[in-house]
Amino acid sequence: MSQVKSTQRQELKADDFEKLFMPGLAIDAVIFGFHENQLKILLLEYENTNLWALPGGFIKKDESLNDAARRTTFDRTGLQNIYLEQFYVFGDIERHDPEPLRTILEGKGQGLFKDHWLFGRFLTVGYYALIDYTKATPNPDLLSDKCEWHDLENLPFLMLDHEQIVDKALETLRANLDQKLIGFNLMPESFTMADLQSLYETILGEKLLRTSFQRKMLNLEILERVEKKYTGGAHKAPYLYRFSKKVKSL
Amino acid sequence: MSQVKSTQRQELKADDFEKLFMPGLAIDAVIFGFHENQLKILLLEYENTNLWALPGGFIKKDESLNDAARRTTFDRTGLQNIYLEQFYVFGDIERHDPEPLRTILEGKGQGLFKDHWLFGRFLTVGYYALIDYTKATPNPDLLSDKCEWHDLENLPFLMLDHEQIVDKALETLRANLDQKLIGFNLMPESFTMADLQSLYETILGEKLLRTSFQRKMLNLEILERVEKKYTGGAHKAPYLYRFSKKVKSL
Repeated sequence: MSQVKSTQRQELKADDFEKLFMPGLAIDAVIFGFHENQLKILLLEYENTNLWALPGGFIKKDESLNDAARRTTFDRTGLQNIYLEQFYVFGDIERHDPEPLRTILEGKGQGLFKDHWLFGRFLTVGYYALIDYTKATPNPDLLSDKCEWHDLENLPFLMLDHEQIVDKALETLRANLDQKLIGFNLMPESFTMADLQSLYETILGEKLLRTSFQRKMLNLEILERVEKKYTGGAHKAPYLYRFSKKVKSL
Repeated sequence: MSQVKSTQRQELKADDFEKLFMPGLAIDAVIFGFHENQLKILLLEYENTNLWALPGGFIKKDESLNDAARRTTFDRTGLQNIYLEQFYVFGDIERHDPEPLRTILEGKGQGLFKDHWLFGRFLTVGYYALIDYTKATPNPDLLSDKCEWHDLENLPFLMLDHEQIVDKALETLRANLDQKLIGFNLMPESFTMADLQSLYETILGEKLLRTSFQRKMLNLEILERVEKKYTGGAHKAPYLYRFSKKVKSL
């Protein structure tokens, strides 16, 4: 990781680039940020181009794919050991469009890249993560000017097929919420059923019925009830729960 | 598709290969065959090498990734429109091992490939399918000598990380069985709950309790009961069901 951090702000040279990375394949990361019942994603902005994009990167020739994803998300957020998941490879022929990247590189005076494979077709492996966004330190990459959170409800126009990548990530996140819940580490050590329901409602984008939500959660058998302490008015306090299982990421 | 079929048995030339395909990325397909409560997978055999492998292929420069997967599975099975699903990209640095491929190509007199990118590192996108194996016509590829069904319980030694790919495919299939069930087209138009339970038991590799299985299936809300015809002894006949929804593949 430290080696990566120390080289990433150097000037990008076409030859080095070709030596360093696997050709034809990229990574794009949909980093969902969650805090106080809000859901956002992290975007890069390229000034003077009106272009926004998902954080992404390439795979070094001597680096495992998942390590490349960990490196990319660490570089953009400052966070390690976050829950990361591959969800789809975007490989349609129609997604190939060298123009946005050409615009960005020309804006940065990177004329050396004229005939580079970067302008040829490449496929991208989509990853998603869900983190507490107050813990991240957004950090632009070599080519971008800003790295910022945007409300999922109000995204700017995204380059290439990045909007489709966000949609598919959200769809996967929603479909797998029950299984993935524990890995996200978004809940405190113990929490109420209402806290958990808020998380679900924010991610699913809809209100849920309290009784059926509670029944469903208990049926998953991933929660255990924490013994209530006597606190005077405790007969009115809600039950506290904690996760009874652990899951591992990638 | 027809163009693909007509070229695939020609001699493989290194230059053509490099012109035709995207570098650094392959496809491997775990094609599960199901019939009469047996589960098998399709494997390629390379004679005189003692090597077995999953059916796979590369992505043409002018071809979408999913189309490459459809082409590969069509070439090996003769079946179109099968349910195919991406499940994982295998990209660990440790999976790179050019020796098996070198052995196979040398056995075929393909010396021209000596310094080809084929012997460099490549990543592979894993796909799985589940088909009725009596409907497939297994067909070896250019480099293999046989294409045959093998019992999942009794697989030969597989090259590279193909055993890991099979394990991950099976794990994904099991985890998503409820959602994917309809897409597989393995059940007749109408079927009994016992038929459906057999399919589940075979894929999960374990016996299930009849009453809880039935309750679970009905709760999924994908089944509708077919009106029973009066057939004399019909008061003892089991209910017939059919799927009430349609799902689409890739």
